[in-house]
Amino acid sequence: MRVVVINTGTEILLGEVLNTHLTFIAREIFPLGLRVDRQMSVPDGIAIRDVLLENFPRADVIFVTGGLGPTTDDLTREITAELLEKELVLDSELAEVITRRLQRRGIRLTDRILRQAQVPQGALVLPNDNGTAPGLYLAAKGEGPHLFLLPGPPRELQPMFAQSVVPILQRIVRQEEPLLCHTYRIVGMGESYVEEAIGADLLALSGIEVGYCARMGEVDLRVLGSAIVLEQADAIVQAKLATSIFSTSGEKLEEVIVRELAQKRATLAVAESCTGGFLAHRITNVPGASAVFLAGYVTYANEAKTAALGIDPTTIAREGAVSETVARGMAEGAQTKSGATFALATTGIAGPGGGSEAKPVGTAYVALAGGGETIVRHLFFPSDRETFKQLATQMALNLLRERLAAV
Amino acid sequence: MRVVVINTGTEILLGEVLNTHLTFIAREIFPLGLRVDRQMSVPDGIAIRDVLLENFPRADVIFVTGGLGPTTDDLTREITAELLEKELVLDSELAEVITRRLQRRGIRLTDRILRQAQVPQGALVLPNDNGTAPGLYLAAKGEGPHLFLLPGPPRELQPMFAQSVVPILQRIVRQEEPLLCHTYRIVGMGESYVEEAIGADLLALSGIEVGYCARMGEVDLRVLGSAIVLEQADAIVQAKLATSIFSTSGEKLEEVIVRELAQKRATLAVAESCTGGFLAHRITNVPGASAVFLAGYVTYANEAKTAALGIDPTTIAREGAVSETVARGMAEGAQTKSGATFALATTGIAGPGGGSEAKPVGTAYVALAGGGETIVRHLFFPSDRETFKQLATQMALNLLRERLAAV
Repeated sequence: MRVVVINTGTEILLGEVLNTHLTFIAREIFPLGLRVDRQMSVPDGIAIRDVLLENFPRADVIFVTGGLGPTTDDLTREITAELLEKELVLDSELAEVITRRLQRRGIRLTDRILRQAQVPQGALVLPNDNGTAPGLYLAAKGEGPHLFLLPGPPRELQPMFAQSVVPILQRIVRQEEPLLCHTYRIVGMGESYVEEAIGADLLALSGIEVGYCARMGEVDLRVLGSAIVLEQADAIVQAKLATSIFSTSGEKLEEVIVRELAQKRATLAVAESCTGGFLAHRITNVPGASAVFLAGYVTYANEAKTAALGIDPTTIAREGAVSETVARGMAEGAQTKSGATFALATTGIAGPGGGSEAKPVGTAYVALAGGGETIVRHLFFPSDRETFKQLATQMALNLLRERLAAV
Repeated sequence: MRVVVINTGTEILLGEVLNTHLTFIAREIFPLGLRVDRQMSVPDGIAIRDVLLENFPRADVIFVTGGLGPTTDDLTREITAELLEKELVLDSELAEVITRRLQRRGIRLTDRILRQAQVPQGALVLPNDNGTAPGLYLAAKGEGPHLFLLPGPPRELQPMFAQSVVPILQRIVRQEEPLLCHTYRIVGMGESYVEEAIGADLLALSGIEVGYCARMGEVDLRVLGSAIVLEQADAIVQAKLATSIFSTSGEKLEEVIVRELAQKRATLAVAESCTGGFLAHRITNVPGASAVFLAGYVTYANEAKTAALGIDPTTIAREGAVSETVARGMAEGAQTKSGATFALATTGIAGPGGGSEAKPVGTAYVALAGGGETIVRHLFFPSDRETFKQLATQMALNLLRERLAAV
C-alpha cells in the first residue's frame, strides 16, 4: 500500500517548528507492515488543495496533519470536503463535546470555534482527548485513498493515532502472516555498542528486520519478524544485553522506577543541583508518582545545600560544590530529611559558563543513598544544558534501577 | 521565487532519523527573502526521478539533500544528469581531493568511492569540508530551476550551505523590497482570542501575511510584510495585545524571567507540589539561571510541605493541600527559607487520580510572594499530567512576569 504523509503548517516551512509527525507516524505504522512512500510539507491555507489532488491518484492511504483548527488559515476540513464532493454538516454530538470542553475551562464559545464541529458527510470522527479539533477518517471510495485528517499539535495527534487510527489501519491492512515487532529499551550503552553486541547474530536469522533508534542516554532496539523468528531473536538479545534492558513494553525509565518502588513499598527523594528539578519532573510525570515520591530539593545555591540538606559549608569550600563528597552528602541529606527509602542526588556543571580546567563543563556526580552503601558515579557529558540534564538524570535513574533489581 | 526542498533518505521515511534539513534551510534562506514553498521526502533510489520531474516546471530553486554518497542507492547525481541531458564527467581535481582525503584516513579507494568525483557537465562543485561527497550547483537554463544537490548528513550540509550556497543565492535573488517577519509571543490568551482581537484589523492592511502557531499556554503571532506594513501592523498589535506579549525576539517565557530578574538583581525560589520540579527545570534550563535562582522545594508529600516550608499541618488538614491558603503559605515559606526576592508556588491535582467533586482533577493554585502583596490564582486545567504541568508553570511564570513589569 502506498502511504503518503502531508504536513500542513507555515511554521514548518518557515523553519520555526521541527516537523516530528513523519517520524512518529512512520514508527506507528511500521508494525502493520506499512511504510511511508512520500512525505510533503505545505503552508497553511489553500496549498493543501494541490497536494491532495496530486496524491489522490497515487496513494492508498493519506495522512494529513494540521489545518483543522479554528483560524481562517485552517482549511483542511473545507478543502477535503470540496474535493470529495461532500457537504460539511454540523455534528451536533461533537458540537456538544466542544461546548462542554470550553465551558469546563470557562472559555467563551465563538462561531470560529464551532467550525471544528463541521464534518464532511460520511466521515468518522476521531475523538481528541487533548484538544478541541477532532480528527476525521474518510474511508476509500473506489480507486481513491483512505484519508485521515489529524490535528497539528503532536500531543493531540499522538494519542489519537494510537487510540483511533491504528485500529482502523489494522482493518484496512490484510496481513497474511502477521509481522510482529519487539522493542527493547536499553540504557547505559551506545547505539553502535548495541549493534556490535547483537547485530551480526540477529541478521544471521532469516526473515528478520532490525532497527535501532538512539535517544539521549538510551537506545531502542526494534526487531521485526514472525513469532518464531522473534523467539530466536529474543534468546540472542537477552543473552547479550539482559542487564541493560530496562523495558520490553515501551515503558520509560522513570515509569519502571515508579512501578518498582511501588511494588516494593519503597519511597524516594531527590536532591538536585545541576539537573535543576528535571529529575523530580521526570519522576512526577508518572501517574501515581505521589505514592512513592516524597520530596525534591533543588539546591542550586550553595546556601540552599547547607540549609535544606545539611551540607557542611566548609566541605563545599574545600572540595567544591561539584565533588564526590558533596554528591554523597546531598543524597544522604535528602534521605535523612525526607525519611525516604532511597535518595538520588546530582551535582555538576551544566555550562555554558562555570567550568574550570580541573572540572570542565559537563562534569557531574550522581549519587544514590539507601538499600546499601551509598554509591557515587563520576560522569562527563560535555553538551548543551538540556542534553546534560537528560543524560545526568538518566544515569541517576539507572543507578536506582540497578539497585532495585539487586535488592 | 518558488523554493522546493527535496529530502532523499529511506531512514527519514522509516522514522529512524528526524529530518532537520527543512528547518535549517528555511532559516538560512529567510533573510534573503526566500521561503520554502513545498518540501518533500522520498526514499533512496529511483524515487528522486519522479519528484524532480514534477517539480522542474513549478520551482525556481530546488534543494535536494542526500543520495550523493558511494552506495548503489545513491542516485541523485546520475538521475539529475540524465534529466538535464548532461553527461557525467570525472572531475580530476575532485578525484584528487577525494583520493587524498581517503589516504589521510587510511581508507582503501574503490571505484564506488570515486563515483563521487563524477560531475554533470557544467555543474559547479561545492566543496565538502566534512565528508567525501561534494555538493553540486546547476544554474537555471531557460525556464528550469536552479538546482542545488547537497549531502545528506547535517554536519556536511550545514557548513557547505553557509559557505557556498548562500553566496550563490545572493546573486540569484534580486531583492526589490526585502520581506520582513515579526513574531509576537503571547501568553494567557488562546489562539482564537488573539485572532479575534487583531485579525480583522491586520488583514485590512495590504501586502500582509498573518499566521498563528499555538503551543501549550502560549501563541505565536507571525506577521510578514514590508518594513512599512510591519510598522502599521505593530501599532495595531501593541495597542490590542501589549500586556500579553512576552517576547518579540523569540525568547521563551523562562528566558524573559531570568533576564529580567538578573537586570533587577533580584532572586527567585520556587515551591512546587503539582508541577513536581518542572518549574525549577524550566528556569534552570536557561543559561545563567544560577545567578538568580536560589532553590526549589518539591514538596510532594504533606510532611515535606511542613518540614521544608513550615506549612502548619492543621491548615493542610483543615483546608487541604490543594487550597489557596497552602499555596500562599508555600510561596511565602519558600521566600523566607531561601531569602529570595520572589517566590512562586504551585499546588494542585495533576491526575489521573486524586480528584474529588469539590476539587476535580485539573484544579490548581499558583502563588507569587515578593515585590508586593502575595497573589494567589485559582486555575483549572483538566488534561494529562504533562499538559497540566506546562499550563500551571506557564501561569506561575506569567504572574512573575506581570509583577516584574510593574515594579
